[in-house]
Amino acid sequence: VRTIFAPTKPNLTINCVSPSSYVFQIDHFGFLEDGTFKQRYLVADKHWQHPGGPVLFYTGNEGDITWFCNNTGFMWEIAEELGAMLVFAEHRYYGESLPFGPDSYSDSKHLNYLTSEQALADFAVLIQNLKSTVPGAQHSPVIAIGGSYGGMLSAWFRMKYPNIVVGALAASAPIWQFPGMVPCGDFYKIVTQDFAKSGYNCDASIRKSWNAIKNVSSTASGLQWLSEEFSLCTPLKNKIDALGFKNWLQETWVNLAMVDYPYEANFLQPLPRWPIQEVCKYLAFDSAVSDRQLLHGVSQAAKVYYNYTGSSSCLNTSQTATGSLGFLGWYYQACTEMVMPMCTDGVQDMFEPEEWNFQAFSDGCNALFGVRPRAEWAGTVYGGKDIASHSNIIFSNGGLDPWSAGGVTYNITDSLVSIMIPDGAHHLDLRYSNDRDTPSVRAARALEVKYFREWIHQAKTTPGTASTL
Amino acid sequence: VRTIFAPTKPNLTINCVSPSSYVFQIDHFGFLEDGTFKQRYLVADKHWQHPGGPVLFYTGNEGDITWFCNNTGFMWEIAEELGAMLVFAEHRYYGESLPFGPDSYSDSKHLNYLTSEQALADFAVLIQNLKSTVPGAQHSPVIAIGGSYGGMLSAWFRMKYPNIVVGALAASAPIWQFPGMVPCGDFYKIVTQDFAKSGYNCDASIRKSWNAIKNVSSTASGLQWLSEEFSLCTPLKNKIDALGFKNWLQETWVNLAMVDYPYEANFLQPLPRWPIQEVCKYLAFDSAVSDRQLLHGVSQAAKVYYNYTGSSSCLNTSQTATGSLGFLGWYYQACTEMVMPMCTDGVQDMFEPEEWNFQAFSDGCNALFGVRPRAEWAGTVYGGKDIASHSNIIFSNGGLDPWSAGGVTYNITDSLVSIMIPDGAHHLDLRYSNDRDTPSVRAARALEVKYFREWIHQAKTTPGTASTL
Repeated sequence: VRTIFAPTKPNLTINCVSPSSYVFQIDHFGFLEDGTFKQRYLVADKHWQHPGGPVLFYTGNEGDITWFCNNTGFMWEIAEELGAMLVFAEHRYYGESLPFGPDSYSDSKHLNYLTSEQALADFAVLIQNLKSTVPGAQHSPVIAIGGSYGGMLSAWFRMKYPNIVVGALAASAPIWQFPGMVPCGDFYKIVTQDFAKSGYNCDASIRKSWNAIKNVSSTASGLQWLSEEFSLCTPLKNKIDALGFKNWLQETWVNLAMVDYPYEANFLQPLPRWPIQEVCKYLAFDSAVSDRQLLHGVSQAAKVYYNYTGSSSCLNTSQTATGSLGFLGWYYQACTEMVMPMCTDGVQDMFEPEEWNFQAFSDGCNALFGVRPRAEWAGTVYGGKDIASHSNIIFSNGGLDPWSAGGVTYNITDSLVSIMIPDGAHHLDLRYSNDRDTPSVRAARALEVKYFREWIHQAKTTPGTASTL
Repeated sequence: VRTIFAPTKPNLTINCVSPSSYVFQIDHFGFLEDGTFKQRYLVADKHWQHPGGPVLFYTGNEGDITWFCNNTGFMWEIAEELGAMLVFAEHRYYGESLPFGPDSYSDSKHLNYLTSEQALADFAVLIQNLKSTVPGAQHSPVIAIGGSYGGMLSAWFRMKYPNIVVGALAASAPIWQFPGMVPCGDFYKIVTQDFAKSGYNCDASIRKSWNAIKNVSSTASGLQWLSEEFSLCTPLKNKIDALGFKNWLQETWVNLAMVDYPYEANFLQPLPRWPIQEVCKYLAFDSAVSDRQLLHGVSQAAKVYYNYTGSSSCLNTSQTATGSLGFLGWYYQACTEMVMPMCTDGVQDMFEPEEWNFQAFSDGCNALFGVRPRAEWAGTVYGGKDIASHSNIIFSNGGLDPWSAGGVTYNITDSLVSIMIPDGAHHLDLRYSNDRDTPSVRAARALEVKYFREWIHQAKTTPGTASTL
């Protein structure tokens, strides 16, 4: 265990560079595959008060753990006041934690151990190992922290392994975005609302843009104009390209909704403060706008997202966000356990109508990976809406974040609590504090720390828990 | 769903003959193996008050489910007063629930899905399916009930799937018989105590018998005498046979401790009431007894267990209990997850000293199945002694039962409670009531039903649970 703080900024610097790794079973749930792999994790113990000081454990999600580490400043900021050790554990199959090295994604046989249950078991085994090998950690209460899918893992970790973690902060964790739990259209409704309130006719212009794209892309010259207008790296050649282009734009608006932060930030992309307001400045059209006028505005809007720094010579429609996320792995997870129905109607949202079609989704999964999703499994194994018997979980959600549609946005019990950040986007609370932070996110973070202190105290004083001395 | 009561005894008859089956995933935790298999379960709904009446769900253990059904009279007796449906679910790889039919035990590849986690997932999926297909069952609170390994499964089922079951009765469930949780010698100490208090010098005679066997079996004529004295079907031929003979005898005494019931019963074998007292009548020797006198007594004692009905023409040392149990499957489970250290010292117990040797055990597992046990896994995944955050589990234990050594024998919290039955053997409380039942087991059953009622009431009145209407 190393200290990996390196003070290059005043007071506190996040430095996520010195990795440790631990050897894990590839298969925790069967004994035929007895192979092991190295999983990466980061440790920072500069402020850790040992013996017995708490551990804040980030349950890594679908990407490189150093990226999550760098984007979870909240943990670094509270380490000193809590006397806490920080651990960031990488999720198997992402970053450098590849069970079969470069073959990990080669086929469904090698992908077979990419499940949330295996990842939770990795985290459990890692913590048990740290407790038994790090002097002074044996009775340290561990708190799970994660955002997005990592937040889902945090919540599920507390539910399934309450012997290992005394509580969990599940930030922007859509644990109810599964079949039958929430309406499939809520996600895109929230995206739409974010644009509607960020500028004059902003949502209406985007709603109109789909038809404008259809009209313009019906001719070869129109496709060329569109490609030039958007500075596309690869020009659009036909209707199929135009469909892909629309999907890419739709994803762009979704991503903007996720990262609509009150200050300049670089999460999915480098962006100005309140980026949707910036975007909407280019979309304030009246109904008389022509297709090409409208699409010119859309292109300027898209460039806010893709070229805020001015360093992009062209826009690449095959990517919408940072390369630190593992999209193929996440798609495999969506194609197996993480079945999250989404739909649009073009009325309550600003997108082209599209129903949720499980069969088509399943067929696509089968074609790509040779596996089919199990729609009901996540609800069965993780409890769906019947989670009242669990305890010590904070579900924080941002009102601007489309993922709050599948989140827990009300208190279930005294110890399964919701913290809403009405003007917050995707797990804003996990980010480093900023002078431009709104009061709601400041209050959320303070309340989260208050719960952490309660859980730590409870763990230290309740018999029959691992942290009782 | 069929009613499978068939009243052939006054008032109530257990009739476990009409099976249903449900198609399950062979692998709940991976998507490569997408095969399914038929799992057997029994349903009795004669007394079920629907809609919404409770379901008592037996979490099947390592054997034929009809045998457990027939030996769990308690559930049949309380069905009417609770207005409950009874469901007995067979554990995968046992009875007729074979994932790969006759090939299920052919090698470690086919055995790979024989784990407690897969079995719990089967139960969860089965209950979700019953709730969505049986009219009136949607909001039925489900209580898990099981004995021995089935009791461990009941407890773990409530811990891991509190969304599916509102509570669990874990009868004689040694959830702490895992490495580092209880002393390895406690199990055999309890066996010894049972014999010590059941007759004059009873434990001392058995303690002496091992050396007597060694002495007598050192000559060919001695081996022949021993074989004739014990009416063995296959005569002992050499020292290795004599070692196997001693193991068989040791297991016999253990089994007697498990089934030391206060009335005639046929669980592992047909036996008289308080069978250890009967056994000890043949073992009341003073220290001057000769080896052959002693072993004559031991042979008479063994025949109490193996030939109470007088129908056995010879004793078979390759079997110690009913054929309804799946020994090979259980041995595979012991060789993977269910690592239960046992040891003897010959001082505090009446057996030959033998230390717990994990490496030798692991080597044996590898030789037989090609797998190695993971000693720490059960503690990590099921919480070991850190289970205080769970709720609504009754741990009942019999003071005569050696498995109580690894059981929960004190209240952990208000809703993780222990019920001790000091003069009870292995899950006596789950058996049909009997005129010779002692007050302690009567009180235990009454208290169990009281808890069931509380859990049912709680489920019906607490928001955020599956049973709230």
